[in-house]
Amino acid sequence: MELIDGKKVANQIKQEITAEVEQIKKEGGKIPHLAAIIVGHDGASETYVGHKEKACNQVGFNSTVLRFEDDIAEDTLLRKVDELNKDTEIDGFIVQLPLPDHISEQKIIEAIDPKKDVDGFHPINLGRMVIGLPAYISATPAGIIELIKRYNIETSGRDVVVIGRSNIVGKPISILLGQKSDTGNATVTLTHSRTKNLKEVASKADIIIAALGQAEFLTADMVKEGATVIDVGITRVKSDKTKSGWKLLGDVKFDEVAEKAAYITPVPGGVGPMTIVSLLQNTLKASKGEIYPRL
Amino acid sequence: MELIDGKKVANQIKQEITAEVEQIKKEGGKIPHLAAIIVGHDGASETYVGHKEKACNQVGFNSTVLRFEDDIAEDTLLRKVDELNKDTEIDGFIVQLPLPDHISEQKIIEAIDPKKDVDGFHPINLGRMVIGLPAYISATPAGIIELIKRYNIETSGRDVVVIGRSNIVGKPISILLGQKSDTGNATVTLTHSRTKNLKEVASKADIIIAALGQAEFLTADMVKEGATVIDVGITRVKSDKTKSGWKLLGDVKFDEVAEKAAYITPVPGGVGPMTIVSLLQNTLKASKGEIYPRL
Repeated sequence: MELIDGKKVANQIKQEITAEVEQIKKEGGKIPHLAAIIVGHDGASETYVGHKEKACNQVGFNSTVLRFEDDIAEDTLLRKVDELNKDTEIDGFIVQLPLPDHISEQKIIEAIDPKKDVDGFHPINLGRMVIGLPAYISATPAGIIELIKRYNIETSGRDVVVIGRSNIVGKPISILLGQKSDTGNATVTLTHSRTKNLKEVASKADIIIAALGQAEFLTADMVKEGATVIDVGITRVKSDKTKSGWKLLGDVKFDEVAEKAAYITPVPGGVGPMTIVSLLQNTLKASKGEIYPRL
Repeated sequence: MELIDGKKVANQIKQEITAEVEQIKKEGGKIPHLAAIIVGHDGASETYVGHKEKACNQVGFNSTVLRFEDDIAEDTLLRKVDELNKDTEIDGFIVQLPLPDHISEQKIIEAIDPKKDVDGFHPINLGRMVIGLPAYISATPAGIIELIKRYNIETSGRDVVVIGRSNIVGKPISILLGQKSDTGNATVTLTHSRTKNLKEVASKADIIIAALGQAEFLTADMVKEGATVIDVGITRVKSDKTKSGWKLLGDVKFDEVAEKAAYITPVPGGVGPMTIVSLLQNTLKASKGEIYPRL
């Protein structure tokens, strides 16, 4: 069994980005600049945005955080989005979700200029991805693809089972792995709560992506000997064995599945650390005009 | 075996649309108006646009065809698209493909206002469909879903195998059948040229969508007893048994597969007749502002 070390890969990619930013600075080019909008004072959102800011600093990006109180009007927020759309200094930006109930998340997402949509949540980026055009891919599926690439995991012609059909993980990763591409060409089955024979289906897969958000759902009897198992789940459960009183569990019953798997991602330290790196990669692409020509 | 009679269903839907348009007229409402842009004199394109015009007349829609020579500049065509975007009389329009080589089809498609994109080719409509938002669905997948609905074919929890990953059929139908919806909730496997064990995979499916464009590819040994088989293929082959010297073949070896299938679509007369009806349905939705609010 080989552990897929997301933390290590994420650090490696950060170093690569750092080197590229230094080179850009040396040549007097535009320093990539990520902005984040945060509304209200949700603890988790503050933490995420803090991590993103820190990651920007680590690799030499400029970063800006725009904070608004949770009584901001939808119109005002839309105006702020539009200002960022037009600000030529900002290469890409995100609006940290969730937003307060009186604001339509979808309306805000669709107001973001797709060229700056480094979260890849705008339907135009999703649609372009589906038809194989250059597009920003959202953080988790992009991170999974990067891990597959860096560990040279063969996907072509192999049977992939994706468990969970969420809009931000299950659906996009099932599309990406089936695409005509070096990290695609797999035969992908997308399973979900209505799938009747999941154990039978999963136990034939060469690669399993577990992304249903149910702690330790995937057990050894659902996994073929020698399969690759990617665990996207993160559930916080009480524990009397940790100092904090909490521990994080993935969607995979790690100890028993690890005995059968050829490759497996741990939780934490697998897919998780890759997500912020994906955001940095998208921001770098934005600043270089790799997906869309620069405005 | 029950034949899925696409021609009959298509006629039935046309009658339903006709009745609705008459009601709209009676109430003094806006008559749905479809426009089509055709560039050059490609025979097949002329035929398709002719069929679409005729179908509009049949159901009482207004229709407009804009014809341009094949030396039209891309800029000029973009301007024409923009004129249709702004024309409040036109509810929806299509640009008949293919376009001459000097014009970027993708650029033209992305210039169409998504609210009038009744072909459902704009990435924003594809992306919205993926995340389950109201969107124009392109003609063939929409036609397949309509047949499934009208024949009460159960999809929830059933195993579907889609053969062929084209942008206009295989990918969207695989997404739709896996969605949380009355005609979805299936466990969908998307197969293609790189799939290694297609016969094994297909022969377990409750529903097979054959959309690879290879005449009589799907043979009886690839189909489970009692399966539903939807044939999207249309290949014209020479024949000494028809007056014209040609006949149309689907992707399914009909005679032998029909003996095992519970439901099967013929070619011609299966999915084919549904595609124009899907376009009419999308145009009606556009005129009623069902997908997007009216401009």
